[in-house]
Amino acid sequence: MGYPNSTPPMLPEIPKRVALLGSTGSIGTQALDVLRAQPGRFVVSALSAQSNTDLLVAQAREFRPAAVVIGDETKYAQVREALANQPETEVLAGAEALAEVAGRPDTDVVLTAMVGYAGLLPTVAAIKAGHDIALANKETLVVAGQLITELVREHGVKLLPVDSEHSAIFQCLVGEEQNPIEKIILTASGGPFRGRSRAQLAQVTRAQALKHPNWDMGAKITIDSASLMNKGLEVIEAKWLFGLRNEQVEVIVHPQSIIHSLVQFEDGSLKAQLGLPDMKLPIQYALGYPQRLPNEFPRFSFLDYPQLTFEAADTTAFRNLGLAFEAMRRGGNAPCILNAANEIAVAAFLRDEIGFLQMSEVVETSLARVSYLAAPTLADYVATDQETRRVATELLQTARA
Amino acid sequence: MGYPNSTPPMLPEIPKRVALLGSTGSIGTQALDVLRAQPGRFVVSALSAQSNTDLLVAQAREFRPAAVVIGDETKYAQVREALANQPETEVLAGAEALAEVAGRPDTDVVLTAMVGYAGLLPTVAAIKAGHDIALANKETLVVAGQLITELVREHGVKLLPVDSEHSAIFQCLVGEEQNPIEKIILTASGGPFRGRSRAQLAQVTRAQALKHPNWDMGAKITIDSASLMNKGLEVIEAKWLFGLRNEQVEVIVHPQSIIHSLVQFEDGSLKAQLGLPDMKLPIQYALGYPQRLPNEFPRFSFLDYPQLTFEAADTTAFRNLGLAFEAMRRGGNAPCILNAANEIAVAAFLRDEIGFLQMSEVVETSLARVSYLAAPTLADYVATDQETRRVATELLQTARA
Repeated sequence: MGYPNSTPPMLPEIPKRVALLGSTGSIGTQALDVLRAQPGRFVVSALSAQSNTDLLVAQAREFRPAAVVIGDETKYAQVREALANQPETEVLAGAEALAEVAGRPDTDVVLTAMVGYAGLLPTVAAIKAGHDIALANKETLVVAGQLITELVREHGVKLLPVDSEHSAIFQCLVGEEQNPIEKIILTASGGPFRGRSRAQLAQVTRAQALKHPNWDMGAKITIDSASLMNKGLEVIEAKWLFGLRNEQVEVIVHPQSIIHSLVQFEDGSLKAQLGLPDMKLPIQYALGYPQRLPNEFPRFSFLDYPQLTFEAADTTAFRNLGLAFEAMRRGGNAPCILNAANEIAVAAFLRDEIGFLQMSEVVETSLARVSYLAAPTLADYVATDQETRRVATELLQTARA
Repeated sequence: MGYPNSTPPMLPEIPKRVALLGSTGSIGTQALDVLRAQPGRFVVSALSAQSNTDLLVAQAREFRPAAVVIGDETKYAQVREALANQPETEVLAGAEALAEVAGRPDTDVVLTAMVGYAGLLPTVAAIKAGHDIALANKETLVVAGQLITELVREHGVKLLPVDSEHSAIFQCLVGEEQNPIEKIILTASGGPFRGRSRAQLAQVTRAQALKHPNWDMGAKITIDSASLMNKGLEVIEAKWLFGLRNEQVEVIVHPQSIIHSLVQFEDGSLKAQLGLPDMKLPIQYALGYPQRLPNEFPRFSFLDYPQLTFEAADTTAFRNLGLAFEAMRRGGNAPCILNAANEIAVAAFLRDEIGFLQMSEVVETSLARVSYLAAPTLADYVATDQETRRVATELLQTARA
């Protein structure tokens, strides 16, 4: 009764204007696939990349945004030259330019798909400009969840999660605004090393850690998935995104990655969102929200997945997950320390400088050494991030010495 | 952001007035448990039962409705006498009185929990009176789905499903009004005889068929669950409830009965509602809608259900399910014939007069013999029901002779 029939949704009179920050990464390129498949519905107002100039230039030639930003300022001339015959596209460089572009008025929604802490300042600028945020950069909420969610409320913008788990929960919450959440359950694939002991984890290599069983993602997040730090960051992200108390966020390991996460309401009813592991769906959902746009993505069938399995997460072997829960409970700048130390540790692991278990050691020691602040300002977060990177880098140098 | 904290919902200024038709059955008694646990939120305006006078009288003494109706007119005097010292409760008897009471203005929502075809006319009366319907009597939509859904639209009332599968889908659709359904997937436990061949099914007894692995229900629906006719009726119910084309309804066997059903939208995303098998939840959801009322029902944990499994439904061995799909595709009065023949067949099986497989034979032969009507009126449905009962009863007598 009253449910619409299957007619393609009308095209909007004015296409939605999307600024895509981090356009050459895994999320960025998939987002452009999504936009390409929905002609007439979106226009790209800005593109940015840290260092992949060739792809950024090719994207700019195809989508003809008003601005492109190359993060690495040494590559500015190269990009400007490549786009010299495209006068409608302004070329800029550096972190400040990125934040300035994120706040320009020619945009409706900013997709924050850059990696790590670098997402924080452009996201703040975009919120202050009144833009909705399609949030793929979880570090923004991990580092400064309270500050960001207060800004979001103050400026009346929408924070639309792109992480598949948070998108799942967001999808389950539409129409339930009057119904409090009892808890949420984030599902975790468990990564490629599920079931291994600490002794076994000590032996794993960079190449093994870069092979994720279900999701195709960038290197940093793939390592975080293998160490379960990614799930820990998602726990903190979820707390802020959905306004939860610490004890309302749970994790369950679900190796098939079909149930993307669940919400339990106060009547005991659980709602889940499911599907094949494909980031294009949550990207499209965030950009099209509240409308679900028809697409040709492969469909899930239970006959291909006759068993869905579940097990408790092992926070002893996978200490990063335990550390993330601890940082969430401590609050203040503890998650910021967790995140910065982890970024340094993952980079060192990717350079083969430290082993898999040492990543947790860097994080744990950094949490103990960097000064705790209960109620940090934005400037405090910036300072905490810098101090933590210094402390974590020193730890690595001492370990090598 | 913006999600409510965990504070108990305010009591309504005026309690919701519930007429409970079929109050002594499995759904009826569980509905009264739900109402009892939510003091101040609901009042009972009417109760009815077919024949269980003792329980009906006890319920009337506790909930003090304005009317009670005993279906079996020979028991009228007994009920009236037992409630002689309760002058605020009017006692009535028979099917016409039930329809009259269902249409009285002192009610907000009518919970139709009576068994079988008997639900049709009181439901029509309640819709015409402008009452919302909490629909536990699936036969109403199976028999006359088009007519009922047109009436519902015409009178602007809500049709709130109580079947756990349909409640699951309804819960997944809140907030998705703008998003067309691609398909729905009804889950089926498979019943106590899942995996058996036709030869094995030929041997099953009444006692075996009455033992359902997951759900505690009345005898008729338990037999229908064992034969998968219940799932077939639910398929037809879902088609009408959610305005679907025939090919948009699928069934998957899920023996643990934790995922109560799923919706797939046109972006490929699936949403599911999950929980322990407990009819109190969908009953409470329908009565409290759109508010989810906090309760003390046992909570689901994945650690108790480490594997959820799925398999195709066997419509060859369980021919009733195939017959139901066929009746849905034929449309018109075919589902009415299916339902009436099945009611006669199940009653005969419960009297040990026919075997398990003969139930499908009665249904199939009745579908072939009773005149097909493409666009039946309410009077046609009544006549089809009567003709089918006569035809099916004759089939049974011939078989015994």
